[in-house]
Amino acid sequence: MSVRQQFASDNYAGICPEAWQAMQQANAGSLPAYGEDEWTVRAADAFRTLFDTDCEVFFVFNGTAANSLALASLCQSYNSVICSPFAHVETDECGAPEFFSNGSKLLAARTDSAKLRPQDVRTLATCRTDIHYPKPRAVTITQPTETGELYTLEEIRALSATCRELGLRLHMDGSRFANACAALGCSPADMTWKAGVDVLCFGGTKNGMAVGEAILFFDRAMAEGFDYRCKQAGQLASKMRFLSAPWVGLLESGAWLRNGAHGNACATRLADAIKDVPGLELMFPVQANALFLRASEKVFTALRERGWRFYTFIGGGARFMFAWDADPARVDELAADIVACSA
Amino acid sequence: MSVRQQFASDNYAGICPEAWQAMQQANAGSLPAYGEDEWTVRAADAFRTLFDTDCEVFFVFNGTAANSLALASLCQSYNSVICSPFAHVETDECGAPEFFSNGSKLLAARTDSAKLRPQDVRTLATCRTDIHYPKPRAVTITQPTETGELYTLEEIRALSATCRELGLRLHMDGSRFANACAALGCSPADMTWKAGVDVLCFGGTKNGMAVGEAILFFDRAMAEGFDYRCKQAGQLASKMRFLSAPWVGLLESGAWLRNGAHGNACATRLADAIKDVPGLELMFPVQANALFLRASEKVFTALRERGWRFYTFIGGGARFMFAWDADPARVDELAADIVACSA
Amino acid sequence: MSVRQQFASDNYAGICPEAWQAMQQANAGSLPAYGEDEWTVRAADAFRTLFDTDCEVFFVFNGTAANSLALASLCQSYNSVICSPFAHVETDECGAPEFFSNGSKLLAARTDSAKLRPQDVRTLATCRTDIHYPKPRAVTITQPTETGELYTLEEIRALSATCRELGLRLHMDGSRFANACAALGCSPADMTWKAGVDVLCFGGTKNGMAVGEAILFFDRAMAEGFDYRCKQAGQLASKMRFLSAPWVGLLESGAWLRNGAHGNACATRLADAIKDVPGLELMFPVQANALFLRASEKVFTALRERGWRFYTFIGGGARFMFAWDADPARVDELAADIVACSA
Amino acid sequence: MSVRQQFASDNYAGICPEAWQAMQQANAGSLPAYGEDEWTVRAADAFRTLFDTDCEVFFVFNGTAANSLALASLCQSYNSVICSPFAHVETDECGAPEFFSNGSKLLAARTDSAKLRPQDVRTLATCRTDIHYPKPRAVTITQPTETGELYTLEEIRALSATCRELGLRLHMDGSRFANACAALGCSPADMTWKAGVDVLCFGGTKNGMAVGEAILFFDRAMAEGFDYRCKQAGQLASKMRFLSAPWVGLLESGAWLRNGAHGNACATRLADAIKDVPGLELMFPVQANALFLRASEKVFTALRERGWRFYTFIGGGARFMFAWDADPARVDELAADIVACSA
Repeated sequence: MSVRQQFASDNYAGICPEAWQAMQQANAGSLPAYGEDEWTVRAADAFRTLFDTDCEVFFVFNGTAANSLALASLCQSYNSVICSPFAHVETDECGAPEFFSNGSKLLAARTDSAKLRPQDVRTLATCRTDIHYPKPRAVTITQPTETGELYTLEEIRALSATCRELGLRLHMDGSRFANACAALGCSPADMTWKAGVDVLCFGGTKNGMAVGEAILFFDRAMAEGFDYRCKQAGQLASKMRFLSAPWVGLLESGAWLRNGAHGNACATRLADAIKDVPGLELMFPVQANALFLRASEKVFTALRERGWRFYTFIGGGARFMFAWDADPARVDELAADIVACSA
Repeated sequence: MSVRQQFASDNYAGICPEAWQAMQQANAGSLPAYGEDEWTVRAADAFRTLFDTDCEVFFVFNGTAANSLALASLCQSYNSVICSPFAHVETDECGAPEFFSNGSKLLAARTDSAKLRPQDVRTLATCRTDIHYPKPRAVTITQPTETGELYTLEEIRALSATCRELGLRLHMDGSRFANACAALGCSPADMTWKAGVDVLCFGGTKNGMAVGEAILFFDRAMAEGFDYRCKQAGQLASKMRFLSAPWVGLLESGAWLRNGAHGNACATRLADAIKDVPGLELMFPVQANALFLRASEKVFTALRERGWRFYTFIGGGARFMFAWDADPARVDELAADIVACSA
Repeated sequence: MSVRQQFASDNYAGICPEAWQAMQQANAGSLPAYGEDEWTVRAADAFRTLFDTDCEVFFVFNGTAANSLALASLCQSYNSVICSPFAHVETDECGAPEFFSNGSKLLAARTDSAKLRPQDVRTLATCRTDIHYPKPRAVTITQPTETGELYTLEEIRALSATCRELGLRLHMDGSRFANACAALGCSPADMTWKAGVDVLCFGGTKNGMAVGEAILFFDRAMAEGFDYRCKQAGQLASKMRFLSAPWVGLLESGAWLRNGAHGNACATRLADAIKDVPGLELMFPVQANALFLRASEKVFTALRERGWRFYTFIGGGARFMFAWDADPARVDELAADIVACSA
Repeated sequence: MSVRQQFASDNYAGICPEAWQAMQQANAGSLPAYGEDEWTVRAADAFRTLFDTDCEVFFVFNGTAANSLALASLCQSYNSVICSPFAHVETDECGAPEFFSNGSKLLAARTDSAKLRPQDVRTLATCRTDIHYPKPRAVTITQPTETGELYTLEEIRALSATCRELGLRLHMDGSRFANACAALGCSPADMTWKAGVDVLCFGGTKNGMAVGEAILFFDRAMAEGFDYRCKQAGQLASKMRFLSAPWVGLLESGAWLRNGAHGNACATRLADAIKDVPGLELMFPVQANALFLRASEKVFTALRERGWRFYTFIGGGARFMFAWDADPARVDELAADIVACSA
């Protein structure tokens, strides 16, 4: 099973050493189940320290569930959620948000950008005020976006100000949150609760864990009953320590941020290597760990023939994603092949 | 975090060596996500070999989800599921089956036994035939039961015959399936599809994994769309290899059965040590890895004072559960303390 | 279609004259849809006058929806609802409460009585406090009960005091609310909000309408979003005036109470006529418009042979229900036949 | 409450004489509940006669429920439904389809037309084949459309051929089905099952009833369990005769078709009167009972000042809808006012 590294997805990576080591330490002896163990307490505390606030923290299995449960907790079934048309919850969750909420409709903004703007929110939140249309109750943004772009702190603050004005709650899908922190060089607190984010889903899987995401409620009142919600929805791990210990490994060691920075650096490395090649175009600014390449079908075919795997589901461009384990030498190989195939 | 071993739950145990080693091997290189990897193929094949049939196999995160999704796939929202009043889905899943199925009602038999009998099924399935009552569509049995008892093969066959006659499907909650196989000494095939079971949830967590359960559909037609169902319900792991590789470790090495046998042996060891002590009573026959002890509150208090943790949620008795990691010496300590406290 | 009157159900009756006349008056000209019409305003005001409070009023199609939507608005999916084992929502709604709430579990008290007692509520609300069991959030009582019995005002107050102490909300299924008011001779306010009821479903169909129930929220804050909930759940009538005008006819004329009193009087009339017949027994005190008769199967067969229809789903007794249109002469025929068949 | 007739909605009309008379006849004596009465049998048979096929017929309260339940019966929660972006289920049902189906996503075609074309269906049904996107299972078309346009029989046949090829089921939202039949002059059978429609929701409310829609399954196998589904979803009327008798009145007398034709004629009457006025434009061909007028805001304001009510939610144009009760003289008044305001 020795395979040459691919950059089709940051889910192709394994478990990073810090997370692995923590799991190994946690795998000792008999410990209480369902989160009553010390690792889980310690992981939750590590989040509180990192975010510099006494938030409520929950650990669930994957991003589908994290985002869907968070949105369901902000809405009733007759509410709606405003999102970008690029939002993963809209395009790649097989109706999970609607399932977990029992019917909350996603309202995708009419925009060509993955980044939602305050006016997008305002338009969707105010265009209908009758009961024949689901009442908007939450806004979800992905940071970094599905196109690898970043909201600035100012942009997040502007969005949250609009949300507050309109009675909406702000959710952040942070499946690659660490990449955003590393790229913007700001603190987790600055990017979330200090900017008006109500709930954050912090991705652990893409950050180097085997499985697991964290959900942070910055307003504890909003978290009422969320433990029951997780249990009922099949998201309460019995051997919780194996979901929480890797977080201890990632957060206490600083690996969470290093992993993010590394992925970002590899994306930039590739961008730098190919940006001046004629016939190629970067579809979006490379701001985090993704690079979207527009090129001719001939180029893509040639790359595939050289063994490269990649997806083209966004705008027909080739997506390359870099995880914590991306090998710079292999990035250079990819760059060289892209250049060669474009010649 | 060095704690003396407890037998309050078989979820207190960690990851067994065979599962751990497979995870370690799987944690190499970049592999496709969402189950498109070789570990997942291999794990599914290992199940097909073990069960000697070309069944459909799905991997999900926990037992709540496994059982609830399986039942939801057998039912529509207006159907009902017949179960024992002791069934975990009825007593300890916080309404998960109703949530996943969007309303399928559980019909608990009126019996004092954790083992459902054909006449229990018949009574509930035929007492109402009007549309004001949810139409029974499935039966779920737990093997071994929540009280540590076992259905014999004859009993399972009798239940499935009744199910077939009444147009019901038979689901087996096998969160401790390995313990049942070890105890009865029969093959997985004999206990399931050869006895008329339609769908099995095979527990991995209690069998020595960190997280993960397998769902086996013996009739492939019943599995139609189940992959979408898992995805929508937040049960599709992106780094699937870490849910599947441990199964490879457990199944290919035979550890799954050894682990089950070991837990069973420890329960028997405790039973043998205390069975003749005056004032104590075994609430149920010790047939798998659980022992339920009826004793005076004074005895329980004394045990707690000696540091033992246990639950009393079934009939007020003390429950002791033995996992793959149970230390016989520690079992003997428990036995000695029980004897001492009962004196 | 001229059929001799039956007392199998109070749903066998048609539309009473006062409701009919109001529909006829409402069937004039072009009026705004979805409740923006004057009839709907007038009907809601009539409820506020009748209940002597500024409650929120909603009109839906039937009792299944009224009760299920009301309970869904009091709960989240992971909550549970405490009820009597005789409760219609538990026994005859085909899982509707679970469907509308997306999984809220009904917890039926272990009692042989249709009347829930404070200790029943307390037991169910406090027996479990872990997240593996759905958190109790509401209590539902039926007034009069499915067995034709009545809660006294003192009993309702005692229940609501227990609810308040335990953080539970109190819902009243009043599908025959008018019968209860007539029987107890108390005001609608006394029996509901003054006694601590949070939400009432007031039955219109059994009270003489073609279709329609009213939902009253005595605390307006609890009604937030309920208009959207009704719309989404298919319970917002486009030509709302035909759901609301009959209420104007019933309430403004006092017919609602006369209808209830008439049904009650017929039940008492039958009870008086047969109470001393050897071999017969009234299963429950006759306090409203129902009479449950225990007799030998031979008696029931003889009655059926004489053309009488009745149900025996509660305890095997014969149920007779009397609506606003019950003909006393026909009640006397029934009494005579019962006496004759018992001879 | 004498108000001058408005054409803002065909829900502003009352009950037509034929439906009223049938209700009056049905309001006699005591009849079995829940559809076990003769009126319900007779209404279902009238549909079978009208459609010339032995279809399954169900009666529910309103269009929201009819369409949502029908779609839910065709899908599982992880399926999706292809529709026009103008579809009422997408724009005006407050998330009801998602609620009743527990999450089936509506996929609105990217088109500016209310009429779905085979290529729209094909594009949406084939653009994604991975489990991260809900699997298309049904197509819904509205006949006539929300813009008052008609699918020809050829167009319906072409759509159903595409559906069959792609494994999709075809649902028709016929809230104004009678208008379509009257306009096309074809038989109900030709427009539905003979053209490949699987399920039809036939609107009764807009056709002259107080409340009520019929759901017709042309393939009886698809209707399995639908009676339970209706019950659980709060759509089973206890006094069913009042939902079914009006259908007897409408269908047996031919009023259903006359009512449709009358509304259509009024729309045409208005169109003829204003079509040559400078500055006005018909937004869509007037093919059924709706007329959409594009004009300056000044014209709309002037019309409102003259007391006319109308909606502008589709493309900013004024919508006028004509029901069975539209008064031609009043239509002429509207025409005259439009002409005058445009001068």
